[in-house]
Amino acid sequence: MHLIIDGYSENQEILKDEDLLAKWLESYPARIGMTRISTPYVVRYMGPELHDWGISGFVFIAESHIGIHTFVERNYVNIDVFSCKDFDAQRAIEDFREGLQLVKLRSCLIDRDWPQPESVAVNPPGFTYHE
Amino acid sequence: MHLIIDGYSENQEILKDEDLLAKWLESYPARIGMTRISTPYVVRYMGPELHDWGISGFVFIAESHIGIHTFVERNYVNIDVFSCKDFDAQRAIEDFREGLQLVKLRSCLIDRDWPQPESVAVNPPGFTYHE
Repeated sequence: MHLIIDGYSENQEILKDEDLLAKWLESYPARIGMTRISTPYVVRYMGPELHDWGISGFVFIAESHIGIHTFVERNYVNIDVFSCKDFDAQRAIEDFREGLQLVKLRSCLIDRDWPQPESVAVNPPGFTYHE
Repeated sequence: MHLIIDGYSENQEILKDEDLLAKWLESYPARIGMTRISTPYVVRYMGPELHDWGISGFVFIAESHIGIHTFVERNYVNIDVFSCKDFDAQRAIEDFREGLQLVKLRSCLIDRDWPQPESVAVNPPGFTYHE
């Protein structure tokens, strides 16, 4: 299950805080029953233009990952919570809404497991199937 | 632009090769015009059951990432190519098809930029918009 969240935060201080992001990535997987298998990786990106910068963070969980990319000057953030195991997506949305103080957000849930490629019947919509 | 690829490879040797995966993540961003901003991170996951193992790899590119998760015994792989900049998704699909010897694959392209949250008119379908 791959939960995608894009949102706008009302708090730039959160979006620029590398330590906070690292701590979140370290502790969050366990809170929703995921197994973290790496330390969090966090980098600061400075783009070619002054307004173009942000923090990116990532952590491996068992066979999948959580990733966060912030665009500080736009107050914008992209979040991916991707896990082989099912998890409570609605709770994750609320956790990120609260944790990153998102005032506007959208989400999309994608089933990344594709157990029977031979069976057209189980192919979910939204994907293009390539011969 | 976030390109999701799920697929089945005919070559387990590729899916279990940590070095190959790391080299791919190191060199691939430049090939499609992306700016890599970290070294590749690659981990081997051994699950609680013998058949449950694989390689996960990840690299930061400017404000986004490429991630790969392999499930060796199932010949299955999940790939994410997520970039702020536009890139040739069709080419990326073909590159991964060839590089990982995918014999069955599906893809999904998601626009992760959400420039005007106030404007309902530009909201793409596929997302749930939260108040």
